[in-house]
Amino acid sequence: MAQDKQRPLILVTNDDGIFAKGILSLTEAVLPLGDVVVVAPDRPQSGMGHAVTINNLLRLNQVRYELPVMAAYSSSGTPVDCVKLAIYKVMHRKPDLVVSGINHGSNSSINVIYSGTMSAAMEGAVESIPSIGFSLLDHSADADFDAAKEIAYQIVSNALTHGIPEGVCLNVNIPQGRKKDIHGIRVCRQARAYWEDVFEVRKDPAGKEYYWLAGEFRNTDHGDDTDEVALQNNFVSVVPVHYDLTAYHAMTHLHQWKLS
Amino acid sequence: MAQDKQRPLILVTNDDGIFAKGILSLTEAVLPLGDVVVVAPDRPQSGMGHAVTINNLLRLNQVRYELPVMAAYSSSGTPVDCVKLAIYKVMHRKPDLVVSGINHGSNSSINVIYSGTMSAAMEGAVESIPSIGFSLLDHSADADFDAAKEIAYQIVSNALTHGIPEGVCLNVNIPQGRKKDIHGIRVCRQARAYWEDVFEVRKDPAGKEYYWLAGEFRNTDHGDDTDEVALQNNFVSVVPVHYDLTAYHAMTHLHQWKLS
Repeated sequence: MAQDKQRPLILVTNDDGIFAKGILSLTEAVLPLGDVVVVAPDRPQSGMGHAVTINNLLRLNQVRYELPVMAAYSSSGTPVDCVKLAIYKVMHRKPDLVVSGINHGSNSSINVIYSGTMSAAMEGAVESIPSIGFSLLDHSADADFDAAKEIAYQIVSNALTHGIPEGVCLNVNIPQGRKKDIHGIRVCRQARAYWEDVFEVRKDPAGKEYYWLAGEFRNTDHGDDTDEVALQNNFVSVVPVHYDLTAYHAMTHLHQWKLS
Repeated sequence: MAQDKQRPLILVTNDDGIFAKGILSLTEAVLPLGDVVVVAPDRPQSGMGHAVTINNLLRLNQVRYELPVMAAYSSSGTPVDCVKLAIYKVMHRKPDLVVSGINHGSNSSINVIYSGTMSAAMEGAVESIPSIGFSLLDHSADADFDAAKEIAYQIVSNALTHGIPEGVCLNVNIPQGRKKDIHGIRVCRQARAYWEDVFEVRKDPAGKEYYWLAGEFRNTDHGDDTDEVALQNNFVSVVPVHYDLTAYHAMTHLHQWKLS
């Protein structure tokens, strides 16, 4: 791929699939800022977390794209597979930035660990590439991404100017509504929360039971510096996220164990 | 399920599938310590990370199991789905401990984020249940789990006695070899590493290309307190892991950005 070395090379991916409105909006937002390559799943991959395809083959197909990108590819793989394929099979180099999204629906708080959008961004961070995941708090397929696009442009501009600390990616969540209704952008920590799961039970035509995962989001965090509080107050939340999962604070406890 | 309230209720799961040798070994290891329920995937789910099934139905089938457990179920879902189904559809309460594995192959270092085994343990931690993932550094289906079983018994005994700090799970990796060749157990941090990916290119019978993900593990961490160093020196590595992914150290940097 011939690329202007003066302009940043930006990889765009997502987990809602290459034809979702959210990835089109993100591509539009970053096109003025660099040369763009899109590599994204060929179908929705929400909730895929950091899954990689190791027990199956992967397909990668160049596709026509309605925006002036350098190239666009769809893949049968997960969002993380897409980042790997983009680096090692499409670009043959590391891009200067990975952006993922804009997700249709929130990835705040504990959702970060289930999110394919954020796992793609984290895979960028593992590869030492500045990476950002964007999510809009609206699940609908035809959500209004106008304000989110402006915010994505602003945050990506800052990332290209100031950089992101190595090994860190950003989890950006954007409230619904128009730009003028959003009060600003807040750097936050991830709220402590969980899903109180409910499984809907149904019967197939043969009478055999099956389940659908549903559930209620439970925020158990009373701090005022969390992403949940920012979003409730109509601020964009920006959480810096890393992949060192070590719970350093728990080491003292473990040293008291009787381990031979 | 009638359960003796004097004995801990232990959930056993994995990502290699309910009929793998590793989960049988783990079940054997913990049977003397509590009442055991097995809920595990009906087929291998390696590399599934923290994936949850939200775009498809879930099956859950009671199966015959060759060990004296209270009940055993296989599910069409991911390891994380299995933990959710176990709590909300099988046990109808939280178990006192979740153990996952014993995985056929390492989940040390960066592998923790790709690992279905560790994601099951992390889902336990999200549910505030003491949880441990076990992995043996041997990929083969008929690996020798004898030493790993002894170590799992010892670590689970300690966890039941001393508890695990809330919101933390343990990532336990066990070297190959006999018990006498293992020098001990070390509490460590996750080594910084990544996979240098290689995609093997093949052609299907119609002549169309497809890819297989392969790659080389690259440890870029020179510290001597990591899980990789412990394992290289034939120690069992125990890394406490949490799901607060906030990179607190990066917040100062972000406060310098020009964000409206």
